[in-house]
Amino acid sequence: MEKLVVIGGGAAGMSASSRARRLKPQMEIEVFEATKMVSHAPCGIPYFIEGLFDDENLFMTYTPQFFIENRKINVRINTRVTEIDLSSRVVYAEGKDGKMKSEYDYLVISTGSKPKRLPSEGNDRVFYIHHPAEAVSLRQKLWSLNTIAIIGGGILGVEAAEALTQRDKKVLLIHRGEYLLNKSLDQELGKVITDRISRDVELRLGEKVIEIKQGGRLIITDKGKYEVDGTIVAIGVEPNVDLVKDKIQLGTTGAIKVDEYMRTNYREVYSAGDNTESVNIVTGKPYWVPFAPVANKMGYVAGSNIGGEPMKFPGVVNTQITKYKEYYIGRVGLQEEEAKKYGFHPVSATITGKTRARYYPGAKDIHVKVIADEETKRILGAQIVGEEEVLGRIDMMAAAIMKGFTIEDTFFIEMGYLPAISRVWDPVIVAIRKIMED
Amino acid sequence: MEKLVVIGGGAAGMSASSRARRLKPQMEIEVFEATKMVSHAPCGIPYFIEGLFDDENLFMTYTPQFFIENRKINVRINTRVTEIDLSSRVVYAEGKDGKMKSEYDYLVISTGSKPKRLPSEGNDRVFYIHHPAEAVSLRQKLWSLNTIAIIGGGILGVEAAEALTQRDKKVLLIHRGEYLLNKSLDQELGKVITDRISRDVELRLGEKVIEIKQGGRLIITDKGKYEVDGTIVAIGVEPNVDLVKDKIQLGTTGAIKVDEYMRTNYREVYSAGDNTESVNIVTGKPYWVPFAPVANKMGYVAGSNIGGEPMKFPGVVNTQITKYKEYYIGRVGLQEEEAKKYGFHPVSATITGKTRARYYPGAKDIHVKVIADEETKRILGAQIVGEEEVLGRIDMMAAAIMKGFTIEDTFFIEMGYLPAISRVWDPVIVAIRKIMED
Ligand SMILES: Cc1cc2nc3c(=O)[nH]c(=O)nc-3n(C[C@H](O)[C@H](O)[C@H](O)COP(=O)(O)OP(=O)(O)OC[C@H]3O[C@@H](n4cnc5c(N)ncnc54)[C@H](O)[C@@H]3O)c2cc1C
Ligand SMILES: Cc1cc2nc3c(=O)[nH]c(=O)nc-3n(C[C@H](O)[C@H](O)[C@H](O)COP(=O)(O)OP(=O)(O)OC[C@H]3O[C@@H](n4cnc5c(N)ncnc54)[C@H](O)[C@@H]3O)c2cc1C
Repeated sequence: MEKLVVIGGGAAGMSASSRARRLKPQMEIEVFEATKMVSHAPCGIPYFIEGLFDDENLFMTYTPQFFIENRKINVRINTRVTEIDLSSRVVYAEGKDGKMKSEYDYLVISTGSKPKRLPSEGNDRVFYIHHPAEAVSLRQKLWSLNTIAIIGGGILGVEAAEALTQRDKKVLLIHRGEYLLNKSLDQELGKVITDRISRDVELRLGEKVIEIKQGGRLIITDKGKYEVDGTIVAIGVEPNVDLVKDKIQLGTTGAIKVDEYMRTNYREVYSAGDNTESVNIVTGKPYWVPFAPVANKMGYVAGSNIGGEPMKFPGVVNTQITKYKEYYIGRVGLQEEEAKKYGFHPVSATITGKTRARYYPGAKDIHVKVIADEETKRILGAQIVGEEEVLGRIDMMAAAIMKGFTIEDTFFIEMGYLPAISRVWDPVIVAIRKIMED
Repeated sequence: MEKLVVIGGGAAGMSASSRARRLKPQMEIEVFEATKMVSHAPCGIPYFIEGLFDDENLFMTYTPQFFIENRKINVRINTRVTEIDLSSRVVYAEGKDGKMKSEYDYLVISTGSKPKRLPSEGNDRVFYIHHPAEAVSLRQKLWSLNTIAIIGGGILGVEAAEALTQRDKKVLLIHRGEYLLNKSLDQELGKVITDRISRDVELRLGEKVIEIKQGGRLIITDKGKYEVDGTIVAIGVEPNVDLVKDKIQLGTTGAIKVDEYMRTNYREVYSAGDNTESVNIVTGKPYWVPFAPVANKMGYVAGSNIGGEPMKFPGVVNTQITKYKEYYIGRVGLQEEEAKKYGFHPVSATITGKTRARYYPGAKDIHVKVIADEETKRILGAQIVGEEEVLGRIDMMAAAIMKGFTIEDTFFIEMGYLPAISRVWDPVIVAIRKIMED
C-alpha cells in the first residue's frame, strides 16, 4: 500500500494530508507533529493574549482525534522528526513512545517557519510569539508583567502591541525602521499607522537592539538602555528548514525550492507552507510569503498531486492584512522601492477618502496607495489603511495584480456601490484615476 | 469655440462634463437639468426616508454654483430639454426663464432612468422613489402614514422596507416573484433574505397587483384586496429615452445603443448613464445596468472622448449591493437561470460560512453562491448575503468575472487572512473549492 508521510501538522501539513486522503481513500497517511496541536492557528495567539478567548483547543480547526477517526490520518502528536533519509525514504522520529522509524512513498515537508532570534544573556523573560501550543504559558507570563518591550515593528510586533495595550500593559516598542510596518507599507500609509500607535505605545524608531540582558529585563540599543519587566522579540521569521537544509535544494530566499507542483528536487518529496519558496507573480522571481492562506493552498496543491490530480500553484502576490484597534491595514503586491529594485518604473497615487456616502452616518477615513508601472501600465501594488472594508478591497487588488490588470482595467472594475459602506467613486478607483490623469 | 451640451445633470452628466472640462479648458459646456439638483445621489433617498440625515443638500456631491464657478460649467437647473434637433444640432429647453435654444458641437444624453408605473385610480397616495429633488416632500408624506404597501420586492422595494420599518411603519410588501430579490439572487440566498425580512414585514409573494384604487389606499391583486394608508410602487426602472426614442438608435434592451466610446449612431452625440445600453462582459451581449458607478464611468468615458482622449468602456458585469438591517446583499455576473438562457452549462456551489475565525468573538454567518461554466470553467456569477465584508468579496469577484478567471484562477486568488474579519479558507474560496471538487 502506498504511504504518505507528512512532517509538521500545521496548516500546510493537514491540508496536504486531508486532500491526499480524499483523493486516495486507501493510501496510508502518517503525520508527525512535534507539539500537541495539529491544524492549529498561530494567527490567533495575539487575540488569545488579548484575552478574547480562553480555550486553547480553539486554536485547532480539528483535533488529532478527528483526523485519526474521521479522516483515517495517523496523526502522531508530540513526536518530532529528527532525521530524514532521502535515499532509503525513511523518516526517524522521537516522541513520548520513544524512537520510531517510518518509510514513505511520498513525503511532505511542512515544518513551517521559526522566529528569528536575538542574542540574550539569560532568557526567562524573553518571549517569542510563535506556536499555539505555547500560548497558555506565554500568556500567563505576559499577564504577570507590567512593562513589556516589543522588539520589532512588523505585523507581529504591531499585533502584540495591540494585545498588550488592550491588557493595559505599558508597552515600549523598539523598531529598526523609520516607521512601523515598513516592510508592508510605504511611508505615506506607514506614517498614518505609526501616528496612531504612538498614542498608546512608547515608540523608539530607527533604533537597533544590540543586546538583551538580565534575562529580558534590560535592553541595550545603539541609542540607549531600557529597563522593562520582559521582552517580546518579534523581528521576523525564517523558513524552518533545519531537517533538510543540507539535503534538499533550497532557493535563493532560504526556503525549500519547489516546482509548480510543490515538488522538491526529489520527485517523491513535496514541500508546502512557510518552509517553502514560491514565485512572485509580479516579478516572476523567487519569493517567500509566510502566511496562512498560502500555506493552506500549497498544502492543498501538494495533496492533490500526491493524490493523482495534477495541480499547479500559480505563485504569490504577498497579500497581507492586519489590524491595530480601529484600523485595518492591508497591502498586496510590491512596495514602491521594491518595485524599483525589480526594474519597474513605478508611478503611484496616495489619497485619503471616506468609507461611506457623505450623507450616511459614521463614515471613516480610508487611506489608499496604488502603485503601477509606467511602461506596461500594470498595477504593481496597493496599500490600504482604514476602519472599514479594507480587506475586500485588498483582495480585489490581489485578483487584479495576479492577472496583470492594467491601470485602466482596474479603473473599470465594476465595484458595487451602497451608500452605507462605500462611495460611488470608490477610494481605490479614485487613487487609480489619479494615476491615470497625472 | 467648441460647445458641449449635456442633457441631465445626474451622475453621468456631471462626470461627462467635468471630464471634458478638465481636458478642454476652453470648451463651452452647458448642462440642462430639469430639477433643482445636480450631481445628486438617488441612492441616498431610502436613508433620507429612514431619517439618517435631514439636509437635502447632502444629496448633491457639488452644488450648481460649484460647477458654475469652479469648473466653468454652465449649469442650468430647473430647465428641461423639450426637444433635440439632431440634424441642425440644436437643443430646445424650457425653464423658469422661459424657452431657450442651444447649439452644440457635442451632445451628451444623460437623462437617466424612470420608474415603471402601475395604473392607478387617483394617485395622491401613490409614491415612486426616484429623484432626490422630490425626497423632502416624499418623506413628509410617508412619515404621516401608518400602514404602507410596497409593490415590488427588488432592491428598491427592500430598501424602502428597511427605511419604513426603521420608522416603525407597518409595511405590506407585495411581490410577483416567489422570493424577494429574485432578479438579483438565486433561490438559495434569496430565501435567506426573504426569511429575514418576513420577520418585520407582511409579505405577499407570488402575487400580482392588478389595480391600485382610491388614490393608493386600496390594492387589488390576483389573490386579494389590501387597504393601506398609501402605496409605494417599486416595480423597476426603465431607460428614460423619451427625448430621443424616435430619433436615435436604441438597443434591444430599450436603452440607447452606443459603441465602446459611448457614441450613439450620431458621431457627435454621446449617451451615458441609466439611459444607455451596455455590453455584458460575460455573454458579450447587449445588457442594461442602471447603477451609479456604471453611470459615472460611462460619463467619464464620454467626457474623455469628447475631450480628445480616446477611452473605451469595457462593458458591465452587473455588480449589485444592497442591505437590509444587519444583512448586506451582493451579487455580480449572471444568475444560474440567466446563465442557462445564454447557453452556458452552469455548475454552482452554495455554502454557509463564518466571517471570522472560530475563536474570534462576533463571527457571523455568511452565505455564498458561486456559479461557473462547466465547459470553459469560467466563473459566471457570485452571490453573497452576510453581515460583514460582503461588498469587498463581490468586488473581487467582479474583477475575476470581468477578466474571465477560471474556477482554479479564482481558487488561487491570494485573499488576505486576519482572524478578526475573515477565515483562513475564505467562504468564497470554500464555495469555489466545492465546485472544483464536485
Ligand atoms: C503570532 C502569529 C500571527 C499570525 N497571524 C497571521 C494572520 O493573521 N494571517 C495569516 O495569514 N498568517 C498569520 N500568521 C502566519 C501563519 O500562522 C503561518 O503562515 C501558517 O501557520 C503556516 O502554516 P505551516 O503549516 O506552513 O506552518 P506551521 O503552522 O508553523 O506548522 C508547522 C508545524 O510543524 C511542526 N514541526 C516543525 N518541525 C517539526 C519536526 N521536525 N517534526 C515534527 N513536527 C515539526 C511545528 O510544531 C508546527 O506545528 C501568523 C503567525 C504567527 C506566529
Ligand atoms: C432610490 C434609489 C436608490 C438607488 N440606490 C443605488 C445604490 O445604492 N447604488 C447604486 O449604484 N445605484 C443606486 N441607484 C441607481 C443610481 O441612482 C443611478 O444608477 C444613477 O443615479 C444614474 O445616474 P444618471 O446620471 O444616469 O441618471 P440620474 O441620476 O437619474 O440623472 C438623470 C438626470 O437627468 C435629468 N433629466 C431627465 N430628463 C431631462 C430633460 N429632458 N431635461 C433636463 N434634464 C433631464 C433628471 O432630472 C435627472 O436629474 C438608486 C436609484 C434610486 C432611484
